[in-house]
Amino acid sequence: MKKVFNPDKASWNELLKRPTQTVAAIETVVNEIFTEVKLKGDQAVSRYTQLFDGTTPENALVSEEEISQAVKSVSPELKEAIELAKSNITTFHTAQKTKRVSVETTNGVMCWQEKRPIQKVGLYIPGGSAPLFSTILMLAVPANIAGCKEIVLCTPPDKEGKINPAILYTANLCGVTKIYKIGGIQAIAAMTFGTESVSSVYKIFGPGNQYVTVAKQLATKYNVAIDMPAGPSELLVYADDTAMPSFVASDLLSQAEHGPDSQVILVSISEKIINEIEKEIEAQLDKLPRKDIAIQAIANSKLILVHTEEEALEMINAYGPEHFIVISEHEDYFVENIQNAGSVFIGNYTPESAGDYASGTNHTLPTNGYAKQYSGVNLGSFLKSMTFQKISEKGIQNIGPAIETMADAEGLQAHKNAVSIRLKSLQ
Amino acid sequence: MKKVFNPDKASWNELLKRPTQTVAAIETVVNEIFTEVKLKGDQAVSRYTQLFDGTTPENALVSEEEISQAVKSVSPELKEAIELAKSNITTFHTAQKTKRVSVETTNGVMCWQEKRPIQKVGLYIPGGSAPLFSTILMLAVPANIAGCKEIVLCTPPDKEGKINPAILYTANLCGVTKIYKIGGIQAIAAMTFGTESVSSVYKIFGPGNQYVTVAKQLATKYNVAIDMPAGPSELLVYADDTAMPSFVASDLLSQAEHGPDSQVILVSISEKIINEIEKEIEAQLDKLPRKDIAIQAIANSKLILVHTEEEALEMINAYGPEHFIVISEHEDYFVENIQNAGSVFIGNYTPESAGDYASGTNHTLPTNGYAKQYSGVNLGSFLKSMTFQKISEKGIQNIGPAIETMADAEGLQAHKNAVSIRLKSLQ
Repeated sequence: MKKVFNPDKASWNELLKRPTQTVAAIETVVNEIFTEVKLKGDQAVSRYTQLFDGTTPENALVSEEEISQAVKSVSPELKEAIELAKSNITTFHTAQKTKRVSVETTNGVMCWQEKRPIQKVGLYIPGGSAPLFSTILMLAVPANIAGCKEIVLCTPPDKEGKINPAILYTANLCGVTKIYKIGGIQAIAAMTFGTESVSSVYKIFGPGNQYVTVAKQLATKYNVAIDMPAGPSELLVYADDTAMPSFVASDLLSQAEHGPDSQVILVSISEKIINEIEKEIEAQLDKLPRKDIAIQAIANSKLILVHTEEEALEMINAYGPEHFIVISEHEDYFVENIQNAGSVFIGNYTPESAGDYASGTNHTLPTNGYAKQYSGVNLGSFLKSMTFQKISEKGIQNIGPAIETMADAEGLQAHKNAVSIRLKSLQ
Repeated sequence: MKKVFNPDKASWNELLKRPTQTVAAIETVVNEIFTEVKLKGDQAVSRYTQLFDGTTPENALVSEEEISQAVKSVSPELKEAIELAKSNITTFHTAQKTKRVSVETTNGVMCWQEKRPIQKVGLYIPGGSAPLFSTILMLAVPANIAGCKEIVLCTPPDKEGKINPAILYTANLCGVTKIYKIGGIQAIAAMTFGTESVSSVYKIFGPGNQYVTVAKQLATKYNVAIDMPAGPSELLVYADDTAMPSFVASDLLSQAEHGPDSQVILVSISEKIINEIEKEIEAQLDKLPRKDIAIQAIANSKLILVHTEEEALEMINAYGPEHFIVISEHEDYFVENIQNAGSVFIGNYTPESAGDYASGTNHTLPTNGYAKQYSGVNLGSFLKSMTFQKISEKGIQNIGPAIETMADAEGLQAHKNAVSIRLKSLQ
């Protein structure tokens, strides 16, 4: 672990740098697969599933029977846990509903704003060692609350052509319309262009490896929106002497086990707590099954001592962490003044894991400094805002002359004329 | 004008197709300028300003003196019109403020969502024949209401190195922090990377030609967000026999004068009104100063007769117009059921021009069918949503076991451990 004491502000940029990825090589592959899927549809998807996943399911669409078998095979304990998480996520995201915003801006000029659901959304859930059913909760629950009509889910099959039962159980529980055994680039391409069996969607959500990330970027060139650009997961903890070192160490390690490129940063004004947390990390690290991964992430992690809380805050805002844990006797200062963070975890008993699974907040959050300008996934991610206006005869008489003047000054006579012709009819 | 009567649903896709643009050639130029500006900063910007705008202003930053001169030279009538528009836009966008959403999802688990301003935003205002000061109102007013700290504006200088006074007046009125005489690709590059004199921003807003559009797309690869992908402006009108043909014709023409690639579509269930509007277009077209442009757009425009209001609605939702005017005795049916549109204008006295300038709604709207998944610019475009959670000892005891179960099922032991270590300490 790198300990950095009172770094000069000029060095912050370098100090807070994220691992960069080169994607140029990937782009060629992604482009090729997109072209193939666009041209050949299901046939191309099937070929890539064989190539990348080593299997060719007879039917990419998961059947009712497969779902009911999965429902049976998930343990009651896990079902109960998932239901509790679903309940909290539902509560928090339902509270985010907004009412129509309606204003008479000038006498006779009614304007309003309404949010309406994106009709067709696609969710991507990666395969691999960990079946990320928790991400289904985070995406399908708000999609349903928003009122999206079609919720398509793609996830890669294992070598036997199967999907993990917890994934199927959760997708079914959360009202996913259709589940497809399709992974990687070909899944993103299928949801972008549509195939004989997969319908195209308007917006694609969900995490994935570099290939999926580049595929989602490419999808935006074909009239599809995405939730946000992706990068390796990251955690920044601010801790003072009120923090329990063993708790903080466990949080830093929970982040580190995500992948060797995970980002883990501790900022403090207390040298004492830094040293205590460092010792705790070493003690806990040894017992982890994913130790090999965590060690690599921890090797890149930074324990940073700064002079003051103000300096700490400035550094945290400059970094813009995806996850920000603050354990401080002055927690209010940080909570009120943090400008750039995806999700904030406050106090000794609020581990990041809580937000990852069950507190109710969303775990799909901006990484890579994108917290400076992107929201994490929330109810609004599945809605779009539309405006309406209705102007009365009186209303157009009130604002018409101003419109004529402005249109004239912009040299747009037909814009002016659309008002003049109405004003004349009212004379 | 193309009249299409009762088109078969299978032909809709072709019928509603937008003009496509090839941007591959542009991408090379844009990449080159980005690289130059990143490496050489102000020097590169200055060179491209000379190359593309035919001038090299001594200072790209507009001075206080230039602004006060501009304020003096704008006519009182135009100032009054701009102030009225600003007042309505302020009223409508202020009404969009939301409160903190706060919920105790489980006993002891407090979750809340807050919107905080994007600290640094950049606005791009094109030059050319029409000085688009109205777009400054649409972008700078909500940026200010949101509380953005830095609002940078770039706009190209004319051959004398000057900016139109109405642009400077409006930018100053709406609290723009800094105005730069920089246009096109080099402006987007400068706001993306920052130069010695231009500070980099987190999100770039505003319209532009193909070069600016591609530059904004490229900016998203360098940790900058953009308001939305852009395309040619478009208007779809639904009119029945309650519509005034001359009004509708004036609206279609106001859209057509934007550019030869503008999209103008009329949908109706009345052959009578289609014919009347067609005649009115011919009569009004002749008198327009931008007639040459409008003729080209009108040549591509479509007057479409359908059987029923239901069919009309389905077609409109399939198209997803940027601007949608509805003049119908059943306007409520359309207003309630329109799913995909940027902004909706209702009734005979609500011309699109009203929303373009002064009703209070925003005129920066999704084109090219993006109304299916993108919002028009609104207050939320300048904010990002952050979540917070604070869990008590009781709270972690309530949801901890569920988190342990789920983390275990996902194979993430360190995530589980972050909870277990806390639960143990409370035993």
